[in-house]
Amino acid sequence: MQRIDEQEPPVPPPRTLEQLQTPALIIDSSLLDSNLRVMSAHLSGPRLRPHVKAHKCTELARRQYALGHHGFTCATIREVEGMVAAGLGEDLLLANEVLDATRLGRLVEAGAGVTVAVDSSATIEAAVSGGVSEVLIDVNVGLPRCGCEPNEAGPLAEQARRAGLTVRGVMGYEGHAVGIEDRTTRADTVAESMGMLATANLAVGGPICSGGGTGSWDLNTVANEIQAGSYALMDTAYAKLGLPFATALTITATVISANRNGWAVADCGLKALGMDHGNPSMLDGHTVWYCSDEHIVFSPPEGIPLPAVGDRVRVLPAHLDPTMAYHEAAWVTEGSAIVDRWAIDLRGW
Amino acid sequence: MQRIDEQEPPVPPPRTLEQLQTPALIIDSSLLDSNLRVMSAHLSGPRLRPHVKAHKCTELARRQYALGHHGFTCATIREVEGMVAAGLGEDLLLANEVLDATRLGRLVEAGAGVTVAVDSSATIEAAVSGGVSEVLIDVNVGLPRCGCEPNEAGPLAEQARRAGLTVRGVMGYEGHAVGIEDRTTRADTVAESMGMLATANLAVGGPICSGGGTGSWDLNTVANEIQAGSYALMDTAYAKLGLPFATALTITATVISANRNGWAVADCGLKALGMDHGNPSMLDGHTVWYCSDEHIVFSPPEGIPLPAVGDRVRVLPAHLDPTMAYHEAAWVTEGSAIVDRWAIDLRGW
Repeated sequence: MQRIDEQEPPVPPPRTLEQLQTPALIIDSSLLDSNLRVMSAHLSGPRLRPHVKAHKCTELARRQYALGHHGFTCATIREVEGMVAAGLGEDLLLANEVLDATRLGRLVEAGAGVTVAVDSSATIEAAVSGGVSEVLIDVNVGLPRCGCEPNEAGPLAEQARRAGLTVRGVMGYEGHAVGIEDRTTRADTVAESMGMLATANLAVGGPICSGGGTGSWDLNTVANEIQAGSYALMDTAYAKLGLPFATALTITATVISANRNGWAVADCGLKALGMDHGNPSMLDGHTVWYCSDEHIVFSPPEGIPLPAVGDRVRVLPAHLDPTMAYHEAAWVTEGSAIVDRWAIDLRGW
Repeated sequence: MQRIDEQEPPVPPPRTLEQLQTPALIIDSSLLDSNLRVMSAHLSGPRLRPHVKAHKCTELARRQYALGHHGFTCATIREVEGMVAAGLGEDLLLANEVLDATRLGRLVEAGAGVTVAVDSSATIEAAVSGGVSEVLIDVNVGLPRCGCEPNEAGPLAEQARRAGLTVRGVMGYEGHAVGIEDRTTRADTVAESMGMLATANLAVGGPICSGGGTGSWDLNTVANEIQAGSYALMDTAYAKLGLPFATALTITATVISANRNGWAVADCGLKALGMDHGNPSMLDGHTVWYCSDEHIVFSPPEGIPLPAVGDRVRVLPAHLDPTMAYHEAAWVTEGSAIVDRWAIDLRGW
């Protein structure tokens, strides 16, 4: 049997949504632009340190850079490497702990600006031995996850400085607060967390007090840089908060089966969707029954006929970040025209 | 600033688990071998059509081929393409509906054996116009998803034959049955579904009656080929059924933070785990609190101290298939030694 060579004859790129192979991520460029501008108008320049973990896309990061945000937040070493490779490595914060910083050290050696979060002796030692010289002290501000206790921050900073590191300040993520639907409760919880971070910052010193996210973008007035990421593309979980950011990301899928008993099936399943926040939603009022590996099963609203096999439908992910991580690329649209293809090039570790 | 060239100096491959960057998929080769052999002893040669959607890995498929299973089941066009590129394209069933079969037609033209599921006029037309000549009639056997109703199968087969297609038989997936924990209820539900499939096969004709999965591997005695996939690596959902297949896949993660208030954090989060079946489990009796994008937060059993920062822990995914789809590669181990790296090369669409 003849083997297929990987060098296929060139296929013209799709120009319209109908020509796309599905499932496919779709970014509405005007909604994205609006989201980016609303955020940048409120948090200008270094007041925003966009988190790339939400979109994992250097082309999107480039738009954020162009609006004046030259420092970025990353969650993985691969994200830091990818941002440097894309020429966006002036001031990257790996807002996470690592025990092996050698890959980061190689980037520093090549001239990139890399700061890493530390919250223990072991992570301080990892920064030193890996060749990273700038750190933030990561402080637990109420979310049970990483970060030292606030009263440990000062001693850890001393330890880091004794080890030869530059301590640029503190970070603390109020992840337990950013998703609270009631704005007053959210504001109170953010304030409580940021009180802890401000105290830690006093003990630690350094110019950076980093925290926050999309849900606290206008509530967190303590952190002097906000690590928001989801605001650019949004998802159905964040949409519940009534923020001034539109859902710019959808997934287009093809109806591959329709059953006379009242359900239809489209080709957007568990391998195209972050599912930890539950089922996705759909445009046109369809009710999602369930998802399996490559399928979403749904029914139309009462009185509306089933879509036909071959029709396209739109799926709205419940959680943006783990959704992006499944896809190789996103297609950027203006109306129904495809104007660009952006690689989701920061995936993996 | 100097840009990092993509041509890094060669780094020696990791030889032990401790040298691996985390999170990393780990396949225990002796458990995998045992799973493959147990299945092949019961369903020999063409009685098993292994489903590659579960592992998305041509190296693993090669082991299944070596045990005598030369036909495979796929869920996406990319899986079919990847299997052909790996030289495993003798008899591939795309057990799913597609509305654009042109990529499949190119494989057929190059000599691959490709059969596609159809359940409607539109999918029959897609096979014809895409250049695929062999089909199975996909029958709904009780899972509300794809497949025509049983009494539509005969007329659809006639329609397909009139359109010039070879109808090799029927397929029907009893996905609502394979996960039922009670064996008797599972057996009854499988039998009911397969009764429907057998009836449809009589109306359709053709030598193939394809169905089943890991949960019905020894209960489905009607389908003459079983589309099992999960049995090779397993997950915590299937482990509940008490099947003779061991959990051969785990994820190794590094403890990156430990809090004196009783929890620890490792670097295996939502982007490393299919979450639709809920939280993963952990070895050593750890209780999983929750996962976020790059973190799993957990606590040890009563009376056992927290692991130290830098320790390794093992995570057991709740659902194999969407877990594999997040990873670029899996590391194959014999004891604590790494003996191979297998690309998860069938990802995407």
